[in-house]
Amino acid sequence: MNKIEHIGIAVKDLEVSNLLFEKLFGVPAYKSEAVESEGVITSFFQNGPNKIELLAATSPGSPIAKFLDKKGEGIHHIAFDVTDIIEEVERLKSEGFVVLNEIPKKGADNKLVVFLHPKSTNGVLIELCQEIK
Amino acid sequence: MNKIEHIGIAVKDLEVSNLLFEKLFGVPAYKSEAVESEGVITSFFQNGPNKIELLAATSPGSPIAKFLDKKGEGIHHIAFDVTDIIEEVERLKSEGFVVLNEIPKKGADNKLVVFLHPKSTNGVLIELCQEIK
Repeated sequence: MNKIEHIGIAVKDLEVSNLLFEKLFGVPAYKSEAVESEGVITSFFQNGPNKIELLAATSPGSPIAKFLDKKGEGIHHIAFDVTDIIEEVERLKSEGFVVLNEIPKKGADNKLVVFLHPKSTNGVLIELCQEIK
Repeated sequence: MNKIEHIGIAVKDLEVSNLLFEKLFGVPAYKSEAVESEGVITSFFQNGPNKIELLAATSPGSPIAKFLDKKGEGIHHIAFDVTDIIEEVERLKSEGFVVLNEIPKKGADNKLVVFLHPKSTNGVLIELCQEIK
């Protein structure tokens, strides 16, 4: 794991939250991207070597909609940048971590992503992400 | 704001979680530090330009003990590195953010820290931190 690639924050209204985080960072989101398979629309803010990803639901049954219903707005996951996601998943499995999707899937922002189950990581939803070359 | 300085994660048992995060990162915590005024004991892991701070309660009335009672283990706050904390607090107040402590206080890891109220930041507890020179 090379660094925190981004922190994912669940929000109810992407337009409202885009303005809020623009005020926080002093710069606007550098992109917005829908991930239809996840029922989510995202926006990304750069902060030095790291990013903040805002996530709003686009369908009522999506994971983000369920998260918002259960917990309200707030931090949804931490994503760590990895060099070789397959190798890293193997290493973490051998250490006893529970992997939610063993086959990396296409996430937002041109990444292959794998999630670790929060029950094996102190209640923290952890994403591993590798840039698609 | 220069980067994500660290993510704070509330844990029940620091020894157990130190081992867990050592497995996750492949390296042990580089330090442990108690902050008596906050009723907390912390440990820090380096991950590239960022850190993870584990926080365990040392007194039942401390903020971390209350957080654990209410929400269980998980992400507690995001801390952003700032160059001039006084100037940054003024800027954020003028943008409408609610500051929890206007006078910076001494936090763990040789930092001056100020917290923003989650009600003004999409449910995210945000810490600003400036290294003490």
